[in-house]
Amino acid sequence: MKVEIISIGSEILSGYTVNTNASFLSQKLKDEGFEVVRHTVLPDSQDELTAGLEEALKRSEIIVTTGGLGPTQDDISKSVIAKIFALPLEQDKGFLAQLKRRFGDFVFMEELALLPKGAILLNNSIGTAPGFVFKSAKNTLILLPGVPKEMEEMFLQEALPYLEKHFPKREILFQESVCLTLLKEVDVEPFLRQIKEKHNDVAIGIYPSFGSLRVTFSLKKDKEKLLSLKKAMEQEFYSYTFAESTIEEALHSLLIKQGKKVAFAESCSGGKLATKVTALADASTYFWGSLVTYSNDMKEKVLRVSSKTLQEKGAVSEEVVIQMVEGLFQLFPVDYAVATSGVAGPAGGSKEKPVGTVCIAVGKRGEKIDVGTLHFVNNRALNIEYTANFALGILYRRACYNKLSFSKPL
Amino acid sequence: MKVEIISIGSEILSGYTVNTNASFLSQKLKDEGFEVVRHTVLPDSQDELTAGLEEALKRSEIIVTTGGLGPTQDDISKSVIAKIFALPLEQDKGFLAQLKRRFGDFVFMEELALLPKGAILLNNSIGTAPGFVFKSAKNTLILLPGVPKEMEEMFLQEALPYLEKHFPKREILFQESVCLTLLKEVDVEPFLRQIKEKHNDVAIGIYPSFGSLRVTFSLKKDKEKLLSLKKAMEQEFYSYTFAESTIEEALHSLLIKQGKKVAFAESCSGGKLATKVTALADASTYFWGSLVTYSNDMKEKVLRVSSKTLQEKGAVSEEVVIQMVEGLFQLFPVDYAVATSGVAGPAGGSKEKPVGTVCIAVGKRGEKIDVGTLHFVNNRALNIEYTANFALGILYRRACYNKLSFSKPL
Repeated sequence: MKVEIISIGSEILSGYTVNTNASFLSQKLKDEGFEVVRHTVLPDSQDELTAGLEEALKRSEIIVTTGGLGPTQDDISKSVIAKIFALPLEQDKGFLAQLKRRFGDFVFMEELALLPKGAILLNNSIGTAPGFVFKSAKNTLILLPGVPKEMEEMFLQEALPYLEKHFPKREILFQESVCLTLLKEVDVEPFLRQIKEKHNDVAIGIYPSFGSLRVTFSLKKDKEKLLSLKKAMEQEFYSYTFAESTIEEALHSLLIKQGKKVAFAESCSGGKLATKVTALADASTYFWGSLVTYSNDMKEKVLRVSSKTLQEKGAVSEEVVIQMVEGLFQLFPVDYAVATSGVAGPAGGSKEKPVGTVCIAVGKRGEKIDVGTLHFVNNRALNIEYTANFALGILYRRACYNKLSFSKPL
Repeated sequence: MKVEIISIGSEILSGYTVNTNASFLSQKLKDEGFEVVRHTVLPDSQDELTAGLEEALKRSEIIVTTGGLGPTQDDISKSVIAKIFALPLEQDKGFLAQLKRRFGDFVFMEELALLPKGAILLNNSIGTAPGFVFKSAKNTLILLPGVPKEMEEMFLQEALPYLEKHFPKREILFQESVCLTLLKEVDVEPFLRQIKEKHNDVAIGIYPSFGSLRVTFSLKKDKEKLLSLKKAMEQEFYSYTFAESTIEEALHSLLIKQGKKVAFAESCSGGKLATKVTALADASTYFWGSLVTYSNDMKEKVLRVSSKTLQEKGAVSEEVVIQMVEGLFQLFPVDYAVATSGVAGPAGGSKEKPVGTVCIAVGKRGEKIDVGTLHFVNNRALNIEYTANFALGILYRRACYNKLSFSKPL
């Protein structure tokens, strides 16, 4: 069952808003056996929007749109749909009453409650913009608001159940994936080529993501074959694999299960490690905190890093990250401690330590500290992202498989 | 001059990769007077990709694509283009030699160097995938790799200069924007409706972003009018305005200019404040560091928050964030200190302090601490994002306009 997603909004075409709505919808639709064949972004302009919608209505039976349902003058989705199907906009009295009850009287309320005749209202449990389903002879259109949180709630609570009910005969594509930390595309490509030679019917996808890799095997039937491929891949790369979709989620589940605690000391990663783990609910179960010691003064005062080492070896050195880990173990009753220090760039590089040089230390209380130096790229944002993902990956391998990662080159 | 952007890759349609490439390209193209009228995402599938490209070739003169140029089996962009224009793929000997020189001999090298006959190579200064320009009688196609960093460099260094040279007669749309911190759409909509009534020819865009708002005025000529509208808006909302595109960039420029230093103590924001400021190059000029004291133990040991206050008032209290700020001022020689503590959710809420309750304190050394409690939403990610943006906004208003933000309701 093919679906197209259309995101409406000049703010996306201007580049100032990233289209995360399409990603969210795609994931959820795919999980329920709908095949998302295209994303389109169209402007808040009568002509372009009409043309783009009409093309999509010809191509695909189900269309999900986001955006253009608010009360401001650039919100025109409802009027465009009404015009395409030559239907009037009518006030939904029930929705208007609901808006009054929830928010009191407010300006634009009457405009919000206008829907194309025959549309089925979808409730917005968070904001004021309505969503709706519109069915024509050939198409099912689902219109959702553009604010991500409102859109997500409405889609999961209202639109997806509608689609599941009205399109019961979906062919669910079986998919199995293997996630790997610290590996690159080239590390797995030879193994995957072998699989492809033997099993040409299996679609293989490789999705690298800054120090992690997700490999997917898909097939319309024969789930057994997929499971055996997954198993073969997990055996080949066993101590790099994790079951969750991101390395921070893998670590999260693992540390909660083990009942272990962790603290970080971050210099070049600038709080990114902490941000990643605290994005997950219940991080407080295992996360003691992170000292983002950006200045040397903070490294000395809080973590007791020796000023002599800082002067002699520099803040970006294996000696300093070792002392940062030791400082954490002295201060807090944690089982694991991780420290980062590097030259994120663009300035601060030298011949010996060019931009992208990053030292990482991962300690398990009472055992040898895993420490090493990595060389990433000449880009600040990527260096921060890589540092965080590699540090989490090295910690994960230590905590899950009891592997040191710096004993061999990464 | 109209441009379409086509992103090629099933990983985007599966929802696992967010299409940031299209945002980047749109911003840069728009700045140079190209009008981006559509984004499309197509799968790595011969039929769908061919159909989507052919439709776009009919609609728009200039097409920029990303993705599908790598060496793996799902990279088919080059062969699809060759087929559409009925041209053979030929080895670019110069590019092959360059690959050998830069990376030594490697597998897939020969496949990478294949280009449709007549294509003009675009150099990839970072990775191995080529990009190219292909001109037909009607269209100019620019094919770029999908890895964002490679794509961005190639676009800025090679593709954009090509477009500027070959499309000199662009009509640059004048645009002026006003950025506002701590305000919502409804706070500015009445003012903007007045402007719209007087100046119907001006296009107005409102782009909210978690505690900030960007308002744009656009017009094909009469830059003077745009400047006067911008000035009127800045006067109306003066102590909320900033000139940069994000509140962290505004704070960054301001603190560097003022020569002031800042430190953070973060609980519920979990490192997000630190991550935002350290994303910017030279943050070390003013950023002392952030203590992400997630556990009470860390709040007590590092920041000297009183255990009595923690017990009696709870970690989420104005008393605790005040003590966190005082702790920072005692430890470090900073001019400003900011602390956050809140119930990010989904668990941890109570009747008195439901999920979304966040206390923020912003201190200027030696002066009254600006402290208050905000009530955001029932969503962890949004609460973290709002907390960081509001804290930065409150700090900015204090540092730039010497305003306390909690003296009136936010």
